[in-house]
Order: sequence, then structure tokens, then C-alpha cells
Amino acid sequence: MSIFSAFDYQMMSRAIALAKQGIYTTTPNPNVGCVLVRDGQIVGEGYHIQAGGPHAEVHALRMAGEQAKGATAYVTLEPCSHYGRTPPCAEGLIQAGVRKVICAMQDPNPQVAGRGMAMLQDAGIEVLSGLLEDDANALNPAFIKRMKTGLPWVQLKMAASLDGQTALANGVSQWITSPEARCDVQKFRAGAGAILSTSRTVIADNASLTVRDSELPESVRHVYPLAEIRQPMRIILDQHHQLYSGLKLYDAGGTVMTVGQEDADICIATESTGKLDLRHLFRTLADEHQINHLWVEAGATLSQTLLSQQLVDEIILYLAPKLMGSDGRGLFGSFGFEVMKDVFQLEISDIVRVGPDIRITAIPQYHSFV
Amino acid sequence: MSIFSAFDYQMMSRAIALAKQGIYTTTPNPNVGCVLVRDGQIVGEGYHIQAGGPHAEVHALRMAGEQAKGATAYVTLEPCSHYGRTPPCAEGLIQAGVRKVICAMQDPNPQVAGRGMAMLQDAGIEVLSGLLEDDANALNPAFIKRMKTGLPWVQLKMAASLDGQTALANGVSQWITSPEARCDVQKFRAGAGAILSTSRTVIADNASLTVRDSELPESVRHVYPLAEIRQPMRIILDQHHQLYSGLKLYDAGGTVMTVGQEDADICIATESTGKLDLRHLFRTLADEHQINHLWVEAGATLSQTLLSQQLVDEIILYLAPKLMGSDGRGLFGSFGFEVMKDVFQLEISDIVRVGPDIRITAIPQYHSFV
Repeated sequence: MSIFSAFDYQMMSRAIALAKQGIYTTTPNPNVGCVLVRDGQIVGEGYHIQAGGPHAEVHALRMAGEQAKGATAYVTLEPCSHYGRTPPCAEGLIQAGVRKVICAMQDPNPQVAGRGMAMLQDAGIEVLSGLLEDDANALNPAFIKRMKTGLPWVQLKMAASLDGQTALANGVSQWITSPEARCDVQKFRAGAGAILSTSRTVIADNASLTVRDSELPESVRHVYPLAEIRQPMRIILDQHHQLYSGLKLYDAGGTVMTVGQEDADICIATESTGKLDLRHLFRTLADEHQINHLWVEAGATLSQTLLSQQLVDEIILYLAPKLMGSDGRGLFGSFGFEVMKDVFQLEISDIVRVGPDIRITAIPQYHSFV
Repeated sequence: MSIFSAFDYQMMSRAIALAKQGIYTTTPNPNVGCVLVRDGQIVGEGYHIQAGGPHAEVHALRMAGEQAKGATAYVTLEPCSHYGRTPPCAEGLIQAGVRKVICAMQDPNPQVAGRGMAMLQDAGIEVLSGLLEDDANALNPAFIKRMKTGLPWVQLKMAASLDGQTALANGVSQWITSPEARCDVQKFRAGAGAILSTSRTVIADNASLTVRDSELPESVRHVYPLAEIRQPMRIILDQHHQLYSGLKLYDAGGTVMTVGQEDADICIATESTGKLDLRHLFRTLADEHQINHLWVEAGATLSQTLLSQQLVDEIILYLAPKLMGSDGRGLFGSFGFEVMKDVFQLEISDIVRVGPDIRITAIPQYHSFV
């Protein structure tokens, strides 16, 4: 039998729903929701809106005021125990006189996991953890990955015709997918901490790689509480200094960071192949720029390299209902596979229709190579 | 307001459900269901099981016996008016004393449409038509197409990795899709009047192209009332007489028909290109062999030709969650497209998961080329 009651589940579900309100704005912080209950009544609730602003618990405690005394707090993530830009939430809960704290999950950072709960317990507060833990994990896949591995969570966007072509033989590629699919991409950009591309792709398409208010689907506007859109950092591999002013990339707001071996915003080493060390780049993005969620829009070459280096967590593939013939450009170059058991295995985790197109979410099964 | 009552809808739905029981067995006849109702009670019902056997109305009338007198008949298709292998059903309904007949749709054959209803009306029976007509149409897409156009309804089966490859660069192609997908293919074969392939594909895979009892999904066994499986005719393009005895094709039961310019089971003319005239073949299959539903399993060349000649009604595409690299074999050769507006446009009508794979049903939008 569960140690949690049906009422507990209901309150934590509400906290999780609240947390989701912040999915386009909290980066690099995680999404967290909090509900305070006294005598079976919600007396306070809140969610983390933006890094630098109050944590979910603070919003809930402010709302509850004196009624927080003796209350039970439902929090989607273990309350923090350290002084950052805000005082530790564990301390806030203690000072407010909360009697019991139920967490959905521990802090994913192994170096601090359990400390917030210990601080609460030391103050005589009853603490339980693990209620709707899977749902809580699903709130912050990217934050959790960075905390646990020091690498960003990487989504690789690709688009092709139903026969796997990304351009006609003569290079024509606009537009394979529908306006609806392009709006859907905006949603992923809006949720990302950074967008990764190459100077080659940026120049070929004269792409701005920004989030455009006018193209965001209604579902995003609905949970986007800020008047001004947060623009993800745009990170462009430009080893040979091909970017130039006048590109649309530099028109719109938001940061552009070039990546190269030298004379770049982010300088990283090359591998023996002469190519930039992408794992090094990703560690730098996670450590120095707090990038949780990296959204990649690039060509066949970078896509293939990222997959081969097992740096992709999810492939987001748009397939347009078109047949272009196999003499065009394919999604990848050659992987050099000679037997079927060596090919990249994926697992389909989601299929949805986006306008006339299909969006497939596929998870590389790297373990099959190890 | 509809001329039909809620009870009428309920009875016709039942007749349609009955008709579906025959989907693997009635070819070249259509699927038809019939329900006889007197005083608000079902007194007889039946469906067409097999060509040469009794029609749906005959089963229902036999079951109702004397109670058919004064009854209302719900039939998914206009009762036939001609002497074929069985006497006309319209006459049977008249002789049994049925008072009213409600049809879902007219006979799709323009040469006899309306005659059955006229025969009933001439006998003083009240006749209504059009109840659940779309559902009735969906029972027999292939039969209806043959009746209306003199051509079979053609489903083109294709299979590829998620990046559109049908084989590795060295030709290795077994197995891209899963055992579940291969069982799913059995279901389509079982429903087809004939399977079309080429000697090249048959020889390369040593394919039998039969329906295998052991591989049929449970959903098929459930509605397959015959102990012995009906094997679709296998039609193999073999212009250059490459088929030879000893192939698995000749192992199992069922008819194999070779197609060529001469010395073949079906001799047809060639086009100026020297290739067999496929439209001519399809007319022959419809006219002389009563093939409603043609299921095509072939390679890139035939698939491409059929599409280019606008002979494909539906593409059934299995995509396996694998990435093989674009140096393998693609789904098609070159169509020679130079601008995006010229590429083949499809409309996705269905997406389902089949084991780890995806099955996409796509309908070519030929009108965009006319």
C-alpha cells in the first residue's frame, strides 16, 4: 500500500501542473511547483517563473502568510538548501512553521541531493519523497541530465520528405515541411536554453534561428507569462570564420556565440580529425553557460557527427507527405554500415500529426553499440 | 431532419458490422450485410461469406423464415437484380413478403445501379437509400473502384528505415522491419484479390508471396471463417522469362500468373519504352480475372513506374526505427524533379504503430499534376 493518500496525489498533480507554467522561462533553473495545504484546504501555491526570481515555495509561502503554520507542503522537487540568488527554501519552510513536506523527487544534483530534506528533518519537520516521481522527472529532463552528467540534453531536429530527402538533386529545399511544422519548431526553440547550428546552415538559409512571437502556437502563448520572449542563446560552429555581418542571424535580439578553435566567442580544441571537439563544447555549454536544453538545427554532417558521438538524446523528425525521389539529398551521409545489426537503432517515443506533416520523436538506443 | 430514425441507424450499423465478417473471403464479390426486422425485433440476419455462396439477403431470409413477411430489410448494398450464380436478391425479398427495404448505397456498377431498387418498388415495396452510405462505401473500396473505373484498387507496399533506405550500400536488406510488421503485411495479402511483384524481387528474396496461416495476426483469424486460407493470385512481371522452377513461389498453393509480352500466362503489349503496359495489365486483371484489390510488393523501379502512371491508390509505408545512412538504396530512383511544386504530393490518411515500427497510409494526390 502506498504511504500517500489519494488527496496527496491530487495535490502533487496540482503542483506539477503549476510547475509546467514555467517551461518557457525558468532556464537554467528547473521547473518547480508548490502547493501548501492546511486542514484539507489549499492555503498557498506557486511555481518558479524565472531564474533570479522567487522559487515556487516562496510564492506559495507568501500567498499562505500566517496560514502556512502547521501546513503540509507539496513540492515537485526537493527544496534547496543553499544560498544562491535567493535564500534556501528549506529554511523558508522551517521559519514559516510548515509541519510536513512531501517531495516528488530528490535534487538531481548528486552533490546536494538529500540536503534540503535533511535540513527540514533536523528542524523536526516530517519529510516524505517519491510521490509522482516519474511525472516530476518529466518536468525537467534537460536540467536533470545536466545535473547528473555535466552535459546538456540534446534534441536534434531533422526534416525530410516521406522518402527521406532533405533537398532535390539541385539543392532546392524550400519548403519541404508545412507552415504548421515550422511553427511547431518555434515551440521547441522557445523551450531551449540554446540553439546549435553551423555557419554553413546559417548562411545557406540566411536563418535567424530566433523565437518569433507571431509564429508561436497558441499552446505556447497560453503558458508564456512574459510579455517579452526569452531568446535562446544561438551557438554557431564557425571554425573557418565564415559568418559575416548583414546575416539575419545578427538582426534580431538575443546572444550569438561563435565556436571555433581560436578567435571565437567559445574557443575549444579540435580532435585529431581537425574537427571541433563537440563533447568538449557541450561540457563548456553546460558548465559555463548553464545550458540544459540544446536544440540542434543543422545539416547532414553535424547531425551525423552528433549521433556518431552519442551526443543526441532525442531526434525530432518532421516528415512531409511528399515523395521527392532518391537522387536528392538524404538525411545523412554514409555511416559505412555493412551489416544490419550495426545500424543506428532508435525507439519511437511519440508520433503526432502537425498540419499535413508527421512529427516523430525517436530516442537513439546507444546501449546497443556498447 | 433525417428520414431515418435512431433505430434505423442502429440496424444498419449492425448490417455493416456483419458485412465486415466477409472481408477476407468474398472477393471478387463485395462485402454485404443484411438485417431483417419485424415489430422492432431482429428476425433474420446474415452476410455474404464467399463468391458462389448465398448473398447476405438469402442468409437473412432463411433465418427469418415466415417472419420475413411484413419485415423491414436493412442491406448495406442495393439488392442485386440479375441472375448470376444465385437468383436475384430483389426477387427473394419480394417473394418473402418484405414490406420495406433500406439500402446504405446503390450498386456501384453504373450499368445496373438502381435496377434492384426499381424492381422492389415495382412490387410495391417501400425503398429508401443512403443510410450510413460512407461506411458502406468504406466496406468495399476495391470492388467499387473496379465497378466504376474498370481498374483494380491498388495498394503499394513499401518499407524503409526512418531515413528512407531500403537496403545498405552493399545490398543487405534483411530485416529492416520487425516480425510484427511482416505479420501486418500478411493481413493485407489475405485481403487482396491478387499480389503483384516482379521476377527480380521474387528471385532476389526467393519470396513465396503467399498468405501464411501461422503469421496472420489474431485480428484476422478472428474474422476468417474458413478453415482453408484463400490464396490471392500471384501476378509476376517476367518479361524476360527469368522465373524458374525450384523457387519458393511455386512451392505453396495458389495460382501464379506470369506477365510478359509473349509466352506468358497473361500476355500484354509493351509501350514505346519497351516496358510492359501496366494500365493494360490492370484492365485485364479487372476485366478477365475480377481482381478488385491488387497488393503490390516490388522494388523501387516498379513502385516508381506505378506512381508515375497514377496507378496507385494507397501507399502502405512501413518505417523501421533505424538510421542506415543515405548511401544505401532509396525508396525510389530519380523522378527528375527540379522544383518543389512538382514533387509527388501525398495525403496521410492513417498512422499506426506496428510493434517497434510505424505504418503510414498515404494517398497520392494526383489531381495536383493535372
